Amino acid sequence: MPINRRFREMTQLESAKNGDITDAMRAVAEDEGLDPSRVRDAVAAGSVVIPKNAHHDFRPRGIGKGLRTKVNANIGYSSHHRVLEEEVEKLDVSVKAGADSVMDLSTGEGLDEMRLDLLKQCPVMFGTVPIYQVISEKHPGEFGAEDIFEVIERQARQGVDFVTVHCGVTKESLDKLFNQGRVCGIVSRGGSILAAWICRTGDENPLYRDYDRLLDIAIEHDVTLSLGDGLRPGAIHDASDRAQFQELMILGELAQRARDRGVQVMIEGPGHVPLDQIEANVKMEKEICGGAPFYVLGPLTTDVAPGYDHITSAIGGAIAASSGADFLCYVTRAEHLRLPTIEDVREGVITARIAAHSADIVKGVKGASDWDKRMSAARKSLDWEKMYSLAIDPERAREMRASSEDYESAVCTMCGPLCAIDMDNLMRKRMKTGV
Amino acid sequence: MPINRRFREMTQLESAKNGDITDAMRAVAEDEGLDPSRVRDAVAAGSVVIPKNAHHDFRPRGIGKGLRTKVNANIGYSSHHRVLEEEVEKLDVSVKAGADSVMDLSTGEGLDEMRLDLLKQCPVMFGTVPIYQVISEKHPGEFGAEDIFEVIERQARQGVDFVTVHCGVTKESLDKLFNQGRVCGIVSRGGSILAAWICRTGDENPLYRDYDRLLDIAIEHDVTLSLGDGLRPGAIHDASDRAQFQELMILGELAQRARDRGVQVMIEGPGHVPLDQIEANVKMEKEICGGAPFYVLGPLTTDVAPGYDHITSAIGGAIAASSGADFLCYVTRAEHLRLPTIEDVREGVITARIAAHSADIVKGVKGASDWDKRMSAARKSLDWEKMYSLAIDPERAREMRASSEDYESAVCTMCGPLCAIDMDNLMRKRMKTGV
Repeated sequence: MPINRRFREMTQLESAKNGDITDAMRAVAEDEGLDPSRVRDAVAAGSVVIPKNAHHDFRPRGIGKGLRTKVNANIGYSSHHRVLEEEVEKLDVSVKAGADSVMDLSTGEGLDEMRLDLLKQCPVMFGTVPIYQVISEKHPGEFGAEDIFEVIERQARQGVDFVTVHCGVTKESLDKLFNQGRVCGIVSRGGSILAAWICRTGDENPLYRDYDRLLDIAIEHDVTLSLGDGLRPGAIHDASDRAQFQELMILGELAQRARDRGVQVMIEGPGHVPLDQIEANVKMEKEICGGAPFYVLGPLTTDVAPGYDHITSAIGGAIAASSGADFLCYVTRAEHLRLPTIEDVREGVITARIAAHSADIVKGVKGASDWDKRMSAARKSLDWEKMYSLAIDPERAREMRASSEDYESAVCTMCGPLCAIDMDNLMRKRMKTGV
Repeated sequence: MPINRRFREMTQLESAKNGDITDAMRAVAEDEGLDPSRVRDAVAAGSVVIPKNAHHDFRPRGIGKGLRTKVNANIGYSSHHRVLEEEVEKLDVSVKAGADSVMDLSTGEGLDEMRLDLLKQCPVMFGTVPIYQVISEKHPGEFGAEDIFEVIERQARQGVDFVTVHCGVTKESLDKLFNQGRVCGIVSRGGSILAAWICRTGDENPLYRDYDRLLDIAIEHDVTLSLGDGLRPGAIHDASDRAQFQELMILGELAQRARDRGVQVMIEGPGHVPLDQIEANVKMEKEICGGAPFYVLGPLTTDVAPGYDHITSAIGGAIAASSGADFLCYVTRAEHLRLPTIEDVREGVITARIAAHSADIVKGVKGASDWDKRMSAARKSLDWEKMYSLAIDPERAREMRASSEDYESAVCTMCGPLCAIDMDNLMRKRMKTGV
């Protein structure tokens, strides 16, 4: 039954198409230093999304072309490590470290209560992967289409701003996957759940077959769809294969259908990708999906560095973002090994922000390169307090220098009295004064 | 007085030009899985160097085109933090973490003894910046050309494999620097020492003026010259400016003169460079310097992340190496703040190796991509012991997983029973068996 549309607010996309500038667009324009009409036009074109559920009250941010590259932190427990307080603290730490959004990926029991708790205190975009709740509440052999849509609607009513939905895991794309031969097969949790469901039931993925039903829910609460890459490569050797691109083409079609119906949509991307294929992956997404914002998980540029995947993903993320990716999902050093600790989360957010900012400098994002200029000027004048205040992580910068003998000195222990900056300053002073 | 050449061994470059395959070339060929004649030809062409002093006994490694990207760790004390045991431990930790070379950048007292101690136990290439010793022994206002060459010869006799010499800091390049206007001026210690010397004395840089005298010493002991970038940009906003390229052009001329006389030579590069200028910087170095190996310090893709410059340099280093840079100088998280601790050094080496390996995968370096394939296969079969053994840092990978509840389990706490790999494996098994 289609949802009665008479009593709902317009979605951001519907408003933009209508020529209206919403409060959300105004807030995004103000934060990005852009003209509100430019934001509206980008939302109308689908190159920018402003994920904000009608029931979640916070200052919204935009994701997409021409805007600052945004960063997401994944939090959430699993049934093998379930400490609620930790996840609440991770939300807090993520926001303080500068995350633009948080996804709760919890699995196991008590998900509704957990999510309500988090949403209440979440001042940034909040996302989920509803299929995780479906499979937490019903055995893999028991759930059906009704369960999926019921959970999505329940989460939408709670105030979730965007949902990852693996609509592109279909009989067609799985066929390509099985014919492909891969080193690592499926590495997406949602992807493997739906693939197993399709194989067991012989039915088509309900998120694909009943896509309009998903759009109905999204319209009702203005939930942004994040079309998940259930068949993303989880190994360098699986990158850019036929399975991945078959899914991407399906997502491109679905993105168009979403935009046509007034639903905001972004596309999720790989994964593990060799350095020289990253730019091509971003360009293909933009072309195939009509310029929809690209939300990338990494990509990791090598498989061999468990314990350092915040770094492998920062390398890939910086390249992806500089090539046009709009939204970086952080990866922590715990990836492939265990759930991240609170410190892993903090470091993961800062690291992803470094990748995003490195890209924003060359993307020409307003104010990005000026930040570096101010830092370098502070460095040149050996103004340590200013350097700390301009550092992406002021606390760590101060702590590290404070742990050395030269905390109170003008220079640092790296060079001591042979500080190049100090010597250069002295030389210039002498040249000016002739002394 | 020219050194008597009758009683010395030929340099690697002279041997290669002569058509000879040396033991060093044979060792490099074996380690890289290449034909020895190919290594010899690359050395003869100057696109590969094998830094190995006649007085330093170790298994040599090659740096340059077609070889695995190499990684250097800087160690050494300053007069503001001088703990000899720490530096010896840093050498040990660097080598264990996989550094291909170590540079001792110590300043202050007791440098000769320190260097002898380090050299005795150094199983990898060993480099220095002789001007640091000059200025540690004589006041900036007192040293002259004789002091510089005396120190270089002293170090060469000790067994130093390669020396950074800032021969391109000349009246001509300084003129370009002062006319340029920069946010951060000179950030190279050696560069600022020589610039101040030139400005004070009005004389030309002895390392440039008496370059043949430097080549005499290099030939005598087969020391490889690493032509330093004394005017490298130390701020994103100073990158790729006229001062930097003026110096590079001088280095290009000097590289040619070195090769003509049988001295192996590589070129040092920036510094702080925006992401979209890195590839151009590498291509320009290769063109201007006749294909000499490029040894880059970073580059850092943003100035705003003190405390995380191992990461900003990994981003830049991976891009540089994938564009053709051959040798990455690590940068630790302590950069811009203090001397690195032993743990900073260890992490710095691993991080630079991640950048180098990410590049080697796409450079087509023999065996590079196969390492990732083996890791991914181990991941797919959930073979944790194999994953640890293949990890770039086995110890950290094991420790991190061991700190979670699932150390003894087949899966990890990230997804618990909803492990995508486990689900995918189960699905494939069912498809095969039809159960």
